Amino acid sequence: MVVLHRITRRAASMIPGGPAGSVLGIHVFHCPDAVGIVAKLSECIASRGGNIHSVDVFVPDKKQVFYSRNEFVFDPARWPRDVVDNDFNKISKLFSAEKSVVRVPDLDPKFKIAVLASKQEHCLVDLLYRWQEGRLPMDISCVISNHQRAPNTHVALFLKQHGIPYHHLPTSAGNTREAEILELVEDTDFLVLARYMQVLSRRFLESYGKDIINIHHGLLPSFKGGNPSKQAFDAGVKLIGATSHFVTEELDAGPIIEQMVERVSHRDTLKSFVQKSENLEKQCLTQAIKSYCELRVLPYQVNKTVVF
Amino acid sequence: MVVLHRITRRAASMIPGGPAGSVLGIHVFHCPDAVGIVAKLSECIASRGGNIHSVDVFVPDKKQVFYSRNEFVFDPARWPRDVVDNDFNKISKLFSAEKSVVRVPDLDPKFKIAVLASKQEHCLVDLLYRWQEGRLPMDISCVISNHQRAPNTHVALFLKQHGIPYHHLPTSAGNTREAEILELVEDTDFLVLARYMQVLSRRFLESYGKDIINIHHGLLPSFKGGNPSKQAFDAGVKLIGATSHFVTEELDAGPIIEQMVERVSHRDTLKSFVQKSENLEKQCLTQAIKSYCELRVLPYQVNKTVVF
Amino acid sequence: MVVLHRITRRAASMIPGGPAGSVLGIHVFHCPDAVGIVAKLSECIASRGGNIHSVDVFVPDKKQVFYSRNEFVFDPARWPRDVVDNDFNKISKLFSAEKSVVRVPDLDPKFKIAVLASKQEHCLVDLLYRWQEGRLPMDISCVISNHQRAPNTHVALFLKQHGIPYHHLPTSAGNTREAEILELVEDTDFLVLARYMQVLSRRFLESYGKDIINIHHGLLPSFKGGNPSKQAFDAGVKLIGATSHFVTEELDAGPIIEQMVERVSHRDTLKSFVQKSENLEKQCLTQAIKSYCELRVLPYQVNKTVVF
Amino acid sequence: MVVLHRITRRAASMIPGGPAGSVLGIHVFHCPDAVGIVAKLSECIASRGGNIHSVDVFVPDKKQVFYSRNEFVFDPARWPRDVVDNDFNKISKLFSAEKSVVRVPDLDPKFKIAVLASKQEHCLVDLLYRWQEGRLPMDISCVISNHQRAPNTHVALFLKQHGIPYHHLPTSAGNTREAEILELVEDTDFLVLARYMQVLSRRFLESYGKDIINIHHGLLPSFKGGNPSKQAFDAGVKLIGATSHFVTEELDAGPIIEQMVERVSHRDTLKSFVQKSENLEKQCLTQAIKSYCELRVLPYQVNKTVVF
Repeated sequence: MVVLHRITRRAASMIPGGPAGSVLGIHVFHCPDAVGIVAKLSECIASRGGNIHSVDVFVPDKKQVFYSRNEFVFDPARWPRDVVDNDFNKISKLFSAEKSVVRVPDLDPKFKIAVLASKQEHCLVDLLYRWQEGRLPMDISCVISNHQRAPNTHVALFLKQHGIPYHHLPTSAGNTREAEILELVEDTDFLVLARYMQVLSRRFLESYGKDIINIHHGLLPSFKGGNPSKQAFDAGVKLIGATSHFVTEELDAGPIIEQMVERVSHRDTLKSFVQKSENLEKQCLTQAIKSYCELRVLPYQVNKTVVF
Repeated sequence: MVVLHRITRRAASMIPGGPAGSVLGIHVFHCPDAVGIVAKLSECIASRGGNIHSVDVFVPDKKQVFYSRNEFVFDPARWPRDVVDNDFNKISKLFSAEKSVVRVPDLDPKFKIAVLASKQEHCLVDLLYRWQEGRLPMDISCVISNHQRAPNTHVALFLKQHGIPYHHLPTSAGNTREAEILELVEDTDFLVLARYMQVLSRRFLESYGKDIINIHHGLLPSFKGGNPSKQAFDAGVKLIGATSHFVTEELDAGPIIEQMVERVSHRDTLKSFVQKSENLEKQCLTQAIKSYCELRVLPYQVNKTVVF
Repeated sequence: MVVLHRITRRAASMIPGGPAGSVLGIHVFHCPDAVGIVAKLSECIASRGGNIHSVDVFVPDKKQVFYSRNEFVFDPARWPRDVVDNDFNKISKLFSAEKSVVRVPDLDPKFKIAVLASKQEHCLVDLLYRWQEGRLPMDISCVISNHQRAPNTHVALFLKQHGIPYHHLPTSAGNTREAEILELVEDTDFLVLARYMQVLSRRFLESYGKDIINIHHGLLPSFKGGNPSKQAFDAGVKLIGATSHFVTEELDAGPIIEQMVERVSHRDTLKSFVQKSENLEKQCLTQAIKSYCELRVLPYQVNKTVVF
Repeated sequence: MVVLHRITRRAASMIPGGPAGSVLGIHVFHCPDAVGIVAKLSECIASRGGNIHSVDVFVPDKKQVFYSRNEFVFDPARWPRDVVDNDFNKISKLFSAEKSVVRVPDLDPKFKIAVLASKQEHCLVDLLYRWQEGRLPMDISCVISNHQRAPNTHVALFLKQHGIPYHHLPTSAGNTREAEILELVEDTDFLVLARYMQVLSRRFLESYGKDIINIHHGLLPSFKGGNPSKQAFDAGVKLIGATSHFVTEELDAGPIIEQMVERVSHRDTLKSFVQKSENLEKQCLTQAIKSYCELRVLPYQVNKTVVF
């Protein structure tokens, strides 16, 4: 069987500007605001010989909370991976952090995801293609679809070539196949709904317990529910959009990660609305996944996000 | 009194590319679709020695309606203004047109408008400034506000310098001053609500009977009603917008003329949301008025617009 | 061999809004300005029962030239394809037109193109993918490259699956292989240079005699010649761009068809400059080809274009 | 005399989210890269009870240099203004910094600038208007122009109302009035050239010795020198732009601070090119000045900028 190899990651020693042996670390932090948090975090990194390349701090007005995201370069021989975790865990306790996550892309296992799709495949195809190009740092453990695909379709061939399992789980009103899906996605880090036309139940969300990223083909909160392109078309809007958001129990109301828009006019038909929308959806979903994998997306207040 | 003169219009004979004595005419047309409409219109113009500079035709899919907008250059000595009207009236009858309007900016009286405003004056100031620059081809017959302004404020001074009456009509729940407003705006061609914080009644709309352009500081239909910036901020959107639309009886639901957006992030505060929104509102309202004065905006289906 | 079928064109009778049997015609026209051109063109269409759906007229200031592009729907049973040509030819003579072209996408043979590429394949891949999606109305007669590709690469497999010949013609300073290329592209309608890293000679341009569309990875006329991303990077620009243009004898100086830009900052590296640039190049080239196939692009004055 | 008061700054105690008495401090830093810089800076702020609200770090690939910009909130009663300077000076020495600047907008004197202009006043008017709105945190010590303005023009009246001196210094080939200008701007912090149509000499730049911000009505490095709108128009570009940059001895070649673009087409005339350009110039210049006053702009390498 012909296997197309993905573009491989640069070697660990290839960190630009870093000495031989250095790798990139990312740390995100969320805790009550206090004096000295940045000092403590940066002192920790410096004391291990690490070198900060980027800092992002967000302290919202009057909220007394603190968010940060650091990128730093370090030598794992001098600062072993498990000690990195230990060091940050101590600071996490010190500031009673709600969240403290470290990621070292060159040392840690890649994010493992599953993609749920239905008949429409523009988002799925784009996702696979960008993954193949090496632009989405993750492994796709499987694609699950409630729509059947013949073995010689573009998607089926692509998946076969890359050794990614394809599960066809047709759903019906009475049978959402959630138990089977749960089993299939058990060991994933997060799920991507690439235009999956089936609402996930509260029970599913609770059982899965990890993040689920959805793409909505409308400019939320404007056009919730079904056929937003039609809704937008009928409303005579002059701008059409797409929204990527986290899935919550309330349909299309989860925290927004990314939104994109494009101009439309009276000349646009429902069909061209749909085409423009699809183009936005692809870009919007990819951007959201990319930000998520780079630890740029954090929950913020009720139903909002910080996107560093 | 110091009077700052506005930039004056170019003389009628200055039409670029036109022979001495030629002026620009605009014709918009809306009728049931049929074979030969463009032919008839262009033949009419050509037979009078007029020269078409621009044609815009819109025939929506499966709707059997026809919209067009022509710009043509002609010599009024050869094709007198009243004969222009007669000629197009005949074609209008021939095709049972719903709308057929001719405008010759250099010969016809300017559009006369009234501006209604409240306390916030960013839209009002921008409108006045662009009018002064000569970029909005209209006369402002008066500014009506339910908010009082001291005589030495920027707006008051500006109006005084340009000889534009300022009417302070404070409104209350029980007294919307609509009768007085109606009297003041009787001879206007259309009204502009530059952030007028008072809903106009059905009765007012019917009595006035002409178009009213409003600016809404939200991306309709998302955030209808009061304080859309706050609504958008609370919804955690990543894009903020403004909408200019015609006023109808249903609040913030009239046909959309123009929409604009700008990116926002978690770093934006409610205050910066408001600032970005205000900036969009100014641009959006000006653009809508400009399009309207150039006969580019036509009603389309239920609650939509064609904007040529 | 597995063959992935392309999305097929809609049937001729599927023209939206048109009666059974109707097809879409496009006519572009360029002649000295005169009174009555639009009238003559539209009268011709109407007299044959054709129905104009779109008109675009451009009469530049003081230049006494006329450009137009019409879209009309007609019944080929009533107005046979060859009679269409005859009818417009008569008008062409009447107005001494420099250009008068009719195209009926559902009846005429598709545009046949050849793509020239080198090692970099982002533009080539994107072009193939969009062609596969049916978004570029043309046939690709062959791909010619001065860079060798193994038979199991993505591009090679794709071409094999779709039965498109791939010609590897390595070039050197002394041997540009132009004679062989000319032979291969002889029956094409136009050429696309999808990052072909070899300058075509004056002799080649003259022998081929048809249009050649190039994509330049810089915002012309800023960064002509080699490595524009590096040039832009060194110049410290805050906006990076791509330009699609017609090939002329003078390197990177042919008429511009489309340009796109994206924001960059000090954080961008030469590598990210290149990535952003590649993304722009793909979109820019596709848009230029699409406009060209729809007869939207016309030469204008010295080295400019009208893009309807 | 009627005086229009400017919107006043918020009181020092109004820092959002800060305790009573707290003010905002900004610190920018540029030094050779080393381990522990962020740690040292943040430790210093924390040790004085200051609270970091924003950190921006830039360590370019392989360049071994470090740039940062901090925003922090502190209590001047606990950390007096002069001690702030002392503390950062020590760190500056420690890391052999090339640049270390502190600014406390509520305690420090405002930036004092002079504006140089010529006949065209769109940039000047926009600048004055935004300054009046309180959006540009600076004092305008004077406006110098080589073009005469009658006392009853908009600009002259505005300046009179705000008590800003207007100096008319007509220039000629032999007399650039640079000695007089130097005297007038001696105590300013930086200069703004709001479409000043006179090249400043090397001697002037050296004598003044501080930054000078210029607005160029073209997308540098494309259209240097005179009449870039005309150059762009003749080149048939599809995008028009404006560039704000620092003035250096070489005309139009200083480090770029900000660039903006807008789409143009064959329908644009030289006049509409100019109008679109003017609109971009205003926005671009204001944005550059705003960034500069907030200590966001730093020199970077040869002829580039970091804009945090």
